[in-house]
Amino acid sequence: MQRISQLASHLTKTHPKTFLRNFTSKMASNNSNIHLYTVGTPNGIKVSILLEELGLPYKVTPISFSKNEQKEPWFLEINPNGRIPALTDTLPDGTPINLFESGSIMQYLVDRYDTEHKVSYPRGSKEGYEVNNWLHWQMGGLGPMQGQANHFFRYAPEKIQYGIDRYQNETRRLYSVMERQLEKGDYLVGDRATIADFACWGWVAAHHWAGVSLDEFPKLEAWLHRLLERPGVEKGRHVPSPHTAFDMKNKSEEELEKEAEKSKAWVQAGMKADAKK
Amino acid sequence: MQRISQLASHLTKTHPKTFLRNFTSKMASNNSNIHLYTVGTPNGIKVSILLEELGLPYKVTPISFSKNEQKEPWFLEINPNGRIPALTDTLPDGTPINLFESGSIMQYLVDRYDTEHKVSYPRGSKEGYEVNNWLHWQMGGLGPMQGQANHFFRYAPEKIQYGIDRYQNETRRLYSVMERQLEKGDYLVGDRATIADFACWGWVAAHHWAGVSLDEFPKLEAWLHRLLERPGVEKGRHVPSPHTAFDMKNKSEEELEKEAEKSKAWVQAGMKADAKK
Repeated sequence: MQRISQLASHLTKTHPKTFLRNFTSKMASNNSNIHLYTVGTPNGIKVSILLEELGLPYKVTPISFSKNEQKEPWFLEINPNGRIPALTDTLPDGTPINLFESGSIMQYLVDRYDTEHKVSYPRGSKEGYEVNNWLHWQMGGLGPMQGQANHFFRYAPEKIQYGIDRYQNETRRLYSVMERQLEKGDYLVGDRATIADFACWGWVAAHHWAGVSLDEFPKLEAWLHRLLERPGVEKGRHVPSPHTAFDMKNKSEEELEKEAEKSKAWVQAGMKADAKK
Repeated sequence: MQRISQLASHLTKTHPKTFLRNFTSKMASNNSNIHLYTVGTPNGIKVSILLEELGLPYKVTPISFSKNEQKEPWFLEINPNGRIPALTDTLPDGTPINLFESGSIMQYLVDRYDTEHKVSYPRGSKEGYEVNNWLHWQMGGLGPMQGQANHFFRYAPEKIQYGIDRYQNETRRLYSVMERQLEKGDYLVGDRATIADFACWGWVAAHHWAGVSLDEFPKLEAWLHRLLERPGVEKGRHVPSPHTAFDMKNKSEEELEKEAEKSKAWVQAGMKADAKK
C-alpha cells in the first residue's frame, strides 16, 4: 500500500495532465478506483470506450511516447512491459491491482463491473466463450498484424515492399474473416456489442493509416458506423485526445507522410533502445 | 446439433488420424466431449499441455498444413479464421461449442475444468487477473513477434535484415520482460504454474528456431526446465507429434535450412492464397 501512495503522490506531482471522467455519486457506490494510463491509439481507446460504455468513473493519465514515459520506472511498476494501456484499481477487499494488455483490462472490467451484461454475456454461456474467441483473435491477429502494416507502410526508415505486402494482405484477410462473421449478424457475437467489437473497432477505424481499404467489406463498414453511433464509443474514442483516424482519408499522401514523420523518430529510437536490452 | 453430427461423421470418414488421449472412467464423470484440432507448434502445444496437466480425456485430430486442411470448409465451421489450434466441446446443458485462439481455449478449459485451481487461481482474485495480464501479453506480444522473427529468419524468400533484426530484437526484449518477472518467483504469477506459463513455454522452448539465445536470460532458462519436469508438460508437448524444438540446437545451420525448406513452400503458398482474399 505504501508503494501505491508513493505512486499516487508521484502522479500528482509529475502528471498535471491527469483528468477525471464521469465522477458522480456513482463513485462511492461501485467502490471503483479506476485509473487509466493511455494514449489515443487503437489499443488505448478500447479501454476508454469500454469505460464510457459502462459509465464508470475513472482517472486518466495520458502517457507521452515522445518523452518515453512508458519506460519510466513508475510506469514499469504498473506494466513491466512498458506499453499502453495500463489500468490500476482496487479490488473489493482493498487490494490494489495493476492490469496491463488491453484484452486483460477489458476482461477485468466486464468481470467486475458489467454485472448486468450490457456489453458481455454471463459467465459459462456459449456466447461468453465466443466473445473470448474473438477478443483473443483481435489480440493475437488483427492488432499485431495491422500494427506491422502500419510499421512497414508508415514508419520504417526504408521502403520494404515485402513487409508492406505481407502485413497489408494479412490485415485484409483478417477483415474478410470479420466480414463473413458480420454476414451472420450485427455484432461479432450474438445480439449485442461486446468487448470483442470494442477491441476491433479502433483498428478497423484506422484502416486507412495501414493502407487497407474497406471497399470490399460492406458489412464491416456498416458495423464500424453502427458502433460509432453509440454514445459510449463516441465519447471513449476521444480519450485522452481527439480521435483522428477518420480525418486521415481527407489528407493527401504528403500530409500523411508528415503525420508519420512525427512518430517515426520515437518509433525508431524505441527500436534502437529495445535492441540493446 | 445436426451440423455437429455431420461434422462428426465427416471426421470419422476423412480423419483416420484422429486418436484418443486419457480416455478412462473420468470421461463419464466430467461430462466432457473435448476434441482438439492441432499441429505441434508453440500455439498448438499450449492446449495439449494444459489438457495433460488437467488429466482430461480428449480426442486429437492432427491438421496438415501442407494439405491446407485448416482452410477446408469443415474446419472453417469450427474456426472461421482457418488457424490451429481449435477445440470443440459440449457445454453442461448439451450445447455444442467451438473454441479458437489458444488463449481463449485455455481460459475456457480452466474455467470449466480446473475447479480445484491446480493451474489457475479463483475468479476475482488478484492472481487470477494477473494471469490474464500475462496470457494476453503472450497472445499479443511474444507469440506474434517471435512468429515474425521465425518468418523473416527462416521462411521469407529473400533475406531482409531489417525484418530479421526488428523481430529478433523484439523477441529478446520480451524475453527480458519475462526474465525480470521470474526474478520475483518461480512462475509468472504467484506460487504455481498457470496457463500464462504454459502459453509462453512452447515459444521460449523454440527460441533457437527464431535465432534468439537464452544465454542472457538465466531465470528464463531455469523456468523452461522447471516446467519441462512436469509430467503434463512432458506429455503435452509431444501432441500430436514429437516435439523437436530442443533438437534444433544440435543441428548445423545447413540442416536447419533444410528443415525450413519443408515449411517454406506452404508458408509462401498460404501467403499468396491469402493475398487474393
